[in-house]
Amino acid sequence: MSRTISVIENILDANDQIAASNRARLDAAGVYALNFMASPGAGKTSLIEKTVAALKSKFRIAVVEGDLATSLDAERVEAAGVQAVQINTGGGCHLDAVMLQQALDHLDLEAIDLLIVENVGNLVCPSNFKLGTHKSVLVASVPEGDDKPYKYPSMYRGVDAMVLNKTDLLPYINFRLDYFQRGVEALNPGCVLFPISCYTEEGLPEWFDWVSSQMASVLA
Amino acid sequence: MSRTISVIENILDANDQIAASNRARLDAAGVYALNFMASPGAGKTSLIEKTVAALKSKFRIAVVEGDLATSLDAERVEAAGVQAVQINTGGGCHLDAVMLQQALDHLDLEAIDLLIVENVGNLVCPSNFKLGTHKSVLVASVPEGDDKPYKYPSMYRGVDAMVLNKTDLLPYINFRLDYFQRGVEALNPGCVLFPISCYTEEGLPEWFDWVSSQMASVLA
Repeated sequence: MSRTISVIENILDANDQIAASNRARLDAAGVYALNFMASPGAGKTSLIEKTVAALKSKFRIAVVEGDLATSLDAERVEAAGVQAVQINTGGGCHLDAVMLQQALDHLDLEAIDLLIVENVGNLVCPSNFKLGTHKSVLVASVPEGDDKPYKYPSMYRGVDAMVLNKTDLLPYINFRLDYFQRGVEALNPGCVLFPISCYTEEGLPEWFDWVSSQMASVLA
Repeated sequence: MSRTISVIENILDANDQIAASNRARLDAAGVYALNFMASPGAGKTSLIEKTVAALKSKFRIAVVEGDLATSLDAERVEAAGVQAVQINTGGGCHLDAVMLQQALDHLDLEAIDLLIVENVGNLVCPSNFKLGTHKSVLVASVPEGDDKPYKYPSMYRGVDAMVLNKTDLLPYINFRLDYFQRGVEALNPGCVLFPISCYTEEGLPEWFDWVSSQMASVLA
């Protein structure tokens, strides 16, 4: 068992070194990067579509899409009007720093202000692999249930901002917002949480403001 | 890279051997075992609660609960009136055959007809690890979206039965059932699919009938 653990530690150490090199490359080009993580179907791609539509006149945006097999999400994002690079993990359960490194090779970083990375839909594994992005964002959703912070603590603990999507479904689902928020606060005190609906667009302006405020560091 | 792949293959090979030993142990004791897999929040535990309530007078049931950290699900299942063993993976993203082997040590197999294993909520990794159960069941859900078969093919390809939960939310969500079903049929031709709602209980009788029909092989 100790042998298995040491292999994993070596892999993570190598990953962190490449993540640091990705970060240096982004910083040198003046690109601010966000890593979106979530369960399958929480609404990462929908949120990216809305974010691109709202902010593309203000910032030059590109998107890196991580998926097991298809390019469905990259096609959706391209239709929203920005450059998208697809990473197919070939069944792999998360993005790692090498995959982002390869994606960066396909982008003209000097022509980008904001890079959004959509990780593989998975509430466990992506939290273990740094990519070199500046901040990570968890997209939770109402139908997943209010117990998810308690059950997936490593993901909830490790992110810099959270979005709770699909609030339009609150009338039809037994979701205790206060129980969810207490879990979030216990694991990640002070983490910003944006209740939103990509369907009704409720809450999205506050989210767009947060992204814009993050960009201030790059555009200063 | 080839070195990494060979390590993974060795791990999977060892896992398969232990899975085969788990299966032999279950068969010797006359236990039929189902492995439930799903995204976080699709409704595995709710379906197990309903299944236990409906079938516990007919079969002697036990449940093995896989979770990253908590025993919340085991407590829910015990409240439904059957024995539950909790496996905490300590952050691990799937159950493996060794974990089930250890759980079997804590059960009186001679006193069980049906063993339900609830895997970690993850639509990627659990599909790579056999446990020794007789059949695997995917619990999909309407809010996850109709594109999930296309985006998570290894999971959809590898299961023996599927449940599509939360059909009560169909009026509020843009979910094309025919698009979903075409994806299922392309990846896993002939796989049984039960559209259900654990909330309204619609479709559950057909699911209970399927479980009962599976048990015939054990009880014959």
